[in-house]
Amino acid sequence: MILVFNNDASEKDIQFAISKIESLGYKPHLSRGVIKTIIGVTGDDRSISEIEFNQLPGVEEVLRVLKPYKLASRDFHPEDTHVSVNNTEIGSGSFTVISGPCSVESEEQIEKSASLLHQYGFKFIRGGAFKPRSSPYSFQGLGENGLKILKKGAQKYGLAVVTEVLSAHDVDMVGEYTDVFQVGARNMQNFALLKALGTAHKPVLLKRGMMAKIEELLLSGEYIMKGGNSRIILCERGIRTFETATRNTLDIGAVPVIKRWSHLPIIIDPSHSMGDWHYVPAVSLAALAAGADGIILEIHPDPIQAKSDGKQSLNFDNFKILINRLKTLAGAMNITIQ
Amino acid sequence: MILVFNNDASEKDIQFAISKIESLGYKPHLSRGVIKTIIGVTGDDRSISEIEFNQLPGVEEVLRVLKPYKLASRDFHPEDTHVSVNNTEIGSGSFTVISGPCSVESEEQIEKSASLLHQYGFKFIRGGAFKPRSSPYSFQGLGENGLKILKKGAQKYGLAVVTEVLSAHDVDMVGEYTDVFQVGARNMQNFALLKALGTAHKPVLLKRGMMAKIEELLLSGEYIMKGGNSRIILCERGIRTFETATRNTLDIGAVPVIKRWSHLPIIIDPSHSMGDWHYVPAVSLAALAAGADGIILEIHPDPIQAKSDGKQSLNFDNFKILINRLKTLAGAMNITIQ
Amino acid sequence: MILVFNNDASEKDIQFAISKIESLGYKPHLSRGVIKTIIGVTGDDRSISEIEFNQLPGVEEVLRVLKPYKLASRDFHPEDTHVSVNNTEIGSGSFTVISGPCSVESEEQIEKSASLLHQYGFKFIRGGAFKPRSSPYSFQGLGENGLKILKKGAQKYGLAVVTEVLSAHDVDMVGEYTDVFQVGARNMQNFALLKALGTAHKPVLLKRGMMAKIEELLLSGEYIMKGGNSRIILCERGIRTFETATRNTLDIGAVPVIKRWSHLPIIIDPSHSMGDWHYVPAVSLAALAAGADGIILEIHPDPIQAKSDGKQSLNFDNFKILINRLKTLAGAMNITIQ
Amino acid sequence: MILVFNNDASEKDIQFAISKIESLGYKPHLSRGVIKTIIGVTGDDRSISEIEFNQLPGVEEVLRVLKPYKLASRDFHPEDTHVSVNNTEIGSGSFTVISGPCSVESEEQIEKSASLLHQYGFKFIRGGAFKPRSSPYSFQGLGENGLKILKKGAQKYGLAVVTEVLSAHDVDMVGEYTDVFQVGARNMQNFALLKALGTAHKPVLLKRGMMAKIEELLLSGEYIMKGGNSRIILCERGIRTFETATRNTLDIGAVPVIKRWSHLPIIIDPSHSMGDWHYVPAVSLAALAAGADGIILEIHPDPIQAKSDGKQSLNFDNFKILINRLKTLAGAMNITIQ
Repeated sequence: MILVFNNDASEKDIQFAISKIESLGYKPHLSRGVIKTIIGVTGDDRSISEIEFNQLPGVEEVLRVLKPYKLASRDFHPEDTHVSVNNTEIGSGSFTVISGPCSVESEEQIEKSASLLHQYGFKFIRGGAFKPRSSPYSFQGLGENGLKILKKGAQKYGLAVVTEVLSAHDVDMVGEYTDVFQVGARNMQNFALLKALGTAHKPVLLKRGMMAKIEELLLSGEYIMKGGNSRIILCERGIRTFETATRNTLDIGAVPVIKRWSHLPIIIDPSHSMGDWHYVPAVSLAALAAGADGIILEIHPDPIQAKSDGKQSLNFDNFKILINRLKTLAGAMNITIQ
Repeated sequence: MILVFNNDASEKDIQFAISKIESLGYKPHLSRGVIKTIIGVTGDDRSISEIEFNQLPGVEEVLRVLKPYKLASRDFHPEDTHVSVNNTEIGSGSFTVISGPCSVESEEQIEKSASLLHQYGFKFIRGGAFKPRSSPYSFQGLGENGLKILKKGAQKYGLAVVTEVLSAHDVDMVGEYTDVFQVGARNMQNFALLKALGTAHKPVLLKRGMMAKIEELLLSGEYIMKGGNSRIILCERGIRTFETATRNTLDIGAVPVIKRWSHLPIIIDPSHSMGDWHYVPAVSLAALAAGADGIILEIHPDPIQAKSDGKQSLNFDNFKILINRLKTLAGAMNITIQ
Repeated sequence: MILVFNNDASEKDIQFAISKIESLGYKPHLSRGVIKTIIGVTGDDRSISEIEFNQLPGVEEVLRVLKPYKLASRDFHPEDTHVSVNNTEIGSGSFTVISGPCSVESEEQIEKSASLLHQYGFKFIRGGAFKPRSSPYSFQGLGENGLKILKKGAQKYGLAVVTEVLSAHDVDMVGEYTDVFQVGARNMQNFALLKALGTAHKPVLLKRGMMAKIEELLLSGEYIMKGGNSRIILCERGIRTFETATRNTLDIGAVPVIKRWSHLPIIIDPSHSMGDWHYVPAVSLAALAAGADGIILEIHPDPIQAKSDGKQSLNFDNFKILINRLKTLAGAMNITIQ
Repeated sequence: MILVFNNDASEKDIQFAISKIESLGYKPHLSRGVIKTIIGVTGDDRSISEIEFNQLPGVEEVLRVLKPYKLASRDFHPEDTHVSVNNTEIGSGSFTVISGPCSVESEEQIEKSASLLHQYGFKFIRGGAFKPRSSPYSFQGLGENGLKILKKGAQKYGLAVVTEVLSAHDVDMVGEYTDVFQVGARNMQNFALLKALGTAHKPVLLKRGMMAKIEELLLSGEYIMKGGNSRIILCERGIRTFETATRNTLDIGAVPVIKRWSHLPIIIDPSHSMGDWHYVPAVSLAALAAGADGIILEIHPDPIQAKSDGKQSLNFDNFKILINRLKTLAGAMNITIQ
């Protein structure tokens, strides 16, 4: 970190900062420039916050040299992390398709979906039982009963379950049904939940908040890893911007950025980012081409009757067309769709 | 709501939509324009979501005529809501100052703060005991012990406590210490928490999420009101934008907008929106002039030693200067600072 | 358009709005709902603005049913527009690569670039001679002399020139050197320039402003088309968001949206959107997979010595690797790279 | 500036950077940390861009210590700049109200507006003759004839004219009619225009672009000052965010930030930021309380008939009410409304 002093900082201010740096176990390097005085903090300061310093008297600004996360960084762990679930490895160079309905609605719906996914050789099914909804008047999910339906359908076809957990208190209960804990965008900074998942023994699919910088997504991953669980799959699902043509703005550039900064796998959510099934195939193909490790995709046997997110769900016919296009592209790239 | 059909929508699509509208208890009004066919949905459709319709075949877009909230709207409740706490009324035309440190750190710190606030005639003290922090390496708060310290200091000086509750499971415990539950920006859409607060018997200070529209803030208020608790104080604390000169961008326009759309009181958080104490006085005064019902302000006896948010906390001298300026302005506006 | 009245709108307000609608040649359809009164405006109102109505007394909101552009819409022109330049057609199903340096710096630099592009069979070279730069202290381009250098190099290798024009007054001069006029992001709403290009006899590469909605990009296209020039190539080059990891946020979803809303070709600018050459290959491949009609790419024989945008320019080796990867992917998609 | 090297930067990369720094006339200070190697650039590097360095091999990031502008900074010019026009001084501690219609529409409209402003003792009238409009189908202004009408009305009542100039080529023509050149938000980075205004002999009202950082606004001011014209009035007019309740989001925090970073006066545009006259009084009062040097306000004798921006224009009755409220507040603050 580098402390930049303002022009009227006193000698006392500078000495105070030096003492503070030393008291934290770092070495200060003072440099009095033509215009500004700065102090470099030397040492591994990744795990301290700039707020230790930016409140000191005379300090105008604190510039970070090192990223504020460590365990999630590629510097710390140069090889790609592979997350093993259900005999597949996410992040190992294949392209993983996790799909299923937005909400679990009925046994029949899950049966149809699971059967289709099995037929295409996929290993995962997703579905929500506890639905965070902006309006109190919207469908809120089937709750634990939904999880039972989902697990039953998944087991019949040998699929791993991916479902959302909303609170630290639900981790044990949801853990009885799921193979992968999904942390939704609204919970990316639910730190109690992240800590609870840090000691869970199952992988975590961590979605980027719609207001979160990539750096903050990695810091949320750091919370989980600090607890001992490094089986994390990051997920870019669109950020909120001024553009209203799509539900969110898919930040496709996050894929190469995360591949460079971190060793964790990164998948894309084309459904929530677009909010309209018409646009889902284009960005799913883009995800593959950009180097993402997979997609998480909403499908529904009858989107017109869906209780949530029908507009952004592919019906089975369109799902099949997309999978074939993904396979063609993947073939040219020597990548397996799984 | 108005359903707009795309140009290749079939007669069957239109009839399907009509049946759907009727099945939900509304009356459809079909209008075939020169270019587009539309169907108006008549009736009070505030409590249904546009997603009931936007997934129907042939439907290109759904336009809302009514806002998606009801209980929180001024149409529903034309008079201003007054929230009574500790013999004061928030939202009744006075300007309420809720201040205190970001984090509870020690008995001495709370004693000093409470004493100052009492001396100035204020009725509230704020302080955090469970701190949601972006980095796992930052100070996470004193927990329940912090709440004990805070309550003790508050009681000594007759102040009401405002403190954050992070989860539905903590409502009872935090409720033993606090007079007002604060819902932080990251929890504005923690719907389990909102539901739990809907049945709590204490007021809720509901902060706007940093990526939330005003409409979504009011929908979160609606969650709480639907449970039976209408003692809600809304709080604008800055939204996230591309500008990095301040920690967030304070949306001062939210004050007159909320005053027009809703009957709930609205206060401003100058500290979190600015992130730098130098800018706090200017926007505190702006809040008063714009018609806000109050501010929630971070102060600290020694900001340089603060364990969190020292940079944005006013020291006591600057607090006093600000309060005097607020009083001068309020005097000219015939408003009481309380 | 649909006029929504507020609850205290008077009968006089409603009659006033009806007269206004009729005076503009449209038919009003009044509907008094349970809660709101609305008036539908029937007729082709694409070319009037909602501001004709939103200032009327009692009008709370104006909802658009039709998009505000006509000539640029796919409804108006269902087939894809093909823009012919230099014996190639942009928008006809091939993937066009327009590349070259950010700024024209020297004859040698252009010679090397043009030779490389020719060797790979490409038909275009891009380069800037008038550089809009945020800082007055940055390199501002070689001016008309740069255009001479660029044209000379292009002619030697049979390449078409793409270069930026900054003002309506420069259209004739720049037109002597260029085959395609580029309108930069900062000029997307320079309406005098758009009008001047509407009567020019060369294609226009119209970049989306970093603050512009897709709808506004199409409205800017409408300005040019209204003047008679429909040879427009749209370009998504990243929008400004809160994310700072990349220079801008590439809105990859704009590709399928524009394909659905408009008949105009759409290309991607991976260089300006990412701002770092490391991320350029990933998003270039994504552009192809998402269905874009091409990319505009910054390359430089020696990026380290570039006078502008060296950080985001590919060197020739990395350019070659990218082109080969694009060809592999395009092959699998039955698309020609040109 | 500080160059941060990535972990695999070679000794050659470091030496190359050192040579580059020296060749530009600065002194490099190399520091090999535990994790990162960095080089500090010492000297006044405000007028060079970080892009000189960020494209060097091995350089991961370039951190700025000094702001990239000089003439516009308060460091360079500690006292407030006062801009004198028409016997008033903007920026000298008074609060200046610049008002008038969005567009010049007729002699009668200007006569009525000018008469009202004169009656209230104001010294300025604003009005647009060349209107940049998003849609080609909207009213585009009366052109030079509008300027004639505006000047005539202003002269009759001793008012100074503020009107927009759209292009460098129009500076002389517009200069024959106006006392202050207005640069609109869309032109904040029209650098040819900024340069032309740098040698003009009249003040410039420079509006912030709706996607521009404060730093970029000051850089645009720097362009004008570099040419020799330091009579600049900055204007915050709302930035584009995800919030759609108001036309733009007024960044009220920009007022204290600009006061701290720069010596130039800063005024607020409540009309364009809000887009709805209902919200204009609240934020006008907030502007005064926050310390702005004035406001630029749209008024119209009959907003319902306005050819542009009627929705956001105050009628004369509401204007009078607002002025009285501003005077009351200003009185308490010992500020003169002029």
